[in-house]
Amino acid sequence: MSSNQPLMAREIADQPDMLQGIVDNGLAEIRAVARQLAEVRPRFVLLAARGTSDHAALYAKYLLEIRGGLPCGLASPSSLTAYGGRPDLRDVLLIAVSQSGGSPDLLQTLEVAKQCGATTVALTNAPQSPLATAADLQIDVRAGDERAVAATKSYTAELLALYLLVESWTPAAGDDAGLRSRVDAVVAAAAELVERRAEIAELADRFRFATQFVVTGRGYDYPTAREAALKLMETSYVAAHAFSGADLMHGPFAQVDRDHPVIAVAPGGVGGEAMRPVFERLEERGADVLLLGDPALAPHASSHFTLPANLGDELHPIVDIIPLQWLALEVSTARGLDPDSPRGLSKVTKTW
Amino acid sequence: MSSNQPLMAREIADQPDMLQGIVDNGLAEIRAVARQLAEVRPRFVLLAARGTSDHAALYAKYLLEIRGGLPCGLASPSSLTAYGGRPDLRDVLLIAVSQSGGSPDLLQTLEVAKQCGATTVALTNAPQSPLATAADLQIDVRAGDERAVAATKSYTAELLALYLLVESWTPAAGDDAGLRSRVDAVVAAAAELVERRAEIAELADRFRFATQFVVTGRGYDYPTAREAALKLMETSYVAAHAFSGADLMHGPFAQVDRDHPVIAVAPGGVGGEAMRPVFERLEERGADVLLLGDPALAPHASSHFTLPANLGDELHPIVDIIPLQWLALEVSTARGLDPDSPRGLSKVTKTW
Repeated sequence: MSSNQPLMAREIADQPDMLQGIVDNGLAEIRAVARQLAEVRPRFVLLAARGTSDHAALYAKYLLEIRGGLPCGLASPSSLTAYGGRPDLRDVLLIAVSQSGGSPDLLQTLEVAKQCGATTVALTNAPQSPLATAADLQIDVRAGDERAVAATKSYTAELLALYLLVESWTPAAGDDAGLRSRVDAVVAAAAELVERRAEIAELADRFRFATQFVVTGRGYDYPTAREAALKLMETSYVAAHAFSGADLMHGPFAQVDRDHPVIAVAPGGVGGEAMRPVFERLEERGADVLLLGDPALAPHASSHFTLPANLGDELHPIVDIIPLQWLALEVSTARGLDPDSPRGLSKVTKTW
Repeated sequence: MSSNQPLMAREIADQPDMLQGIVDNGLAEIRAVARQLAEVRPRFVLLAARGTSDHAALYAKYLLEIRGGLPCGLASPSSLTAYGGRPDLRDVLLIAVSQSGGSPDLLQTLEVAKQCGATTVALTNAPQSPLATAADLQIDVRAGDERAVAATKSYTAELLALYLLVESWTPAAGDDAGLRSRVDAVVAAAAELVERRAEIAELADRFRFATQFVVTGRGYDYPTAREAALKLMETSYVAAHAFSGADLMHGPFAQVDRDHPVIAVAPGGVGGEAMRPVFERLEERGADVLLLGDPALAPHASSHFTLPANLGDELHPIVDIIPLQWLALEVSTARGLDPDSPRGLSKVTKTW
């Protein structure tokens, strides 16, 4: 890709090679962490993260509950930091997810969790970071240097690393060959989606003047909706609000009308089926829907973008965010903004 | 209150008496459930809820982690329902929170959790409901009949019932007299806030034409921000997006500018202190902030509404939502909408 492209565009385009690199160079490390977790036998998992990484944590929550048989929660860092809560965390695994490994409140959360008896894992893109070095075990997500403020490749790297970790650790674990062939399909799907930027640019044109977006998906597709909304907020300064399909029906649906776009992520599978009643309600309301996924689920959608078929519900999130990364980039540049340097943001967010 | 007021107004005004009634008539039942939980000795808590009740569940998460010493998670219902996840829930307590007790996905979540080994508690406003009868233990939140679609008094009833449950169950438990005197302060604060509707009506006038709101708070005040945003969405059809003070700094901050209001909840205490860096950033950005809470925290806010002092961090949420309920009602009626019957919504939301 030419060097006058925004960094964000180059980082989006990097993703297929990067994902391949994670399985080629990172699987052994992930398998080793998984073996240690199998010995520790945690009974409950807490995931601690902020921003984009929090959406990767949410993906891991679904994986762990559905495929790992482990109850999970997303940690509320202020409980342990600002309020000084000291819960009994024996038999608890705390997984902290962070691109930079440099956020003070995550570091403190991890340190307190350790003192309270938890086993701790840091999953970062910075193996020398304070978070990675403080944890009992660490995984380098191997996204490579990420320079755009809006995270893209570090997100999909986190998703794949978390997938490989859960698959390696839990009873569902198969052999390397099976895992590698599933990752091959992911890499191929990512490569296809990276190439479809022009299709997204055309769709983005309709959103040039939109200021409020609702983004929705269910189950495994809900983290994708959350992350897409965050990219739109970061790069285009719009109000983009993600809801799980079920939560959308509880109250927020009142704000849906013909004049503000809805973006729905429904590649099919269980999450797609669970969206059917949501699509019916959106159609009754005359909502303007961009559907990413199976056109049969929402035949009245205003626009469609097909997603790769037959990936498996739990693999879709790793690639389905790619067209939505392109969308955020295209909407941002169409508005004359610089997607690499959103106003008011910096790459490492320090919150206490 | 005169009968030509919206139902929502009457239900907001009911809250002081209702809160008093919960402690007068419900404390014995809550104490009995707490004694049984103390025998069960769960090690982890999952909270399952949707919509407004999900914000009560989030409040309970902070209470349980900070005061109860128990790690918690908010359940993702689709893990257990749509995806058929069957995690090992021995030593887990599942608390389902629902006004109606009639949501099919919550009922299924509770039933599956039971099969997976969890102890289950239903906290509802409908003791004969499917959810309440399916649970091992139940608590009636005694909000009385709630008829407006936008939940108000059932929310504060859930908060108080959850507070009484956690205080009764955990090592922090004091005697009845101490608990009753703290609840007396809550009831007095609620009565004061119910009376300050006119002050809110004046503030609401500035928001007559606003379409995008950011609502923020941290720690115990974050559920208040979430619930306030939902009320605004439900009754006034605006895009109101709540962020914890820390999450706001991660990406969503880019959408903050002078032209869209920010509502901040910071009664003081630990959550208020943790908001100081957020207020500094908002000031740098020239954001238009309505501060509910301690004026010293954000001296440059465009408008202020003081909150009762000296309630204690964990009691504030029970009453601090009241002015924000009034705000949603006043913005809705100023726009000529009917806050009792939001478009597209019904009182019991059936999601699968």
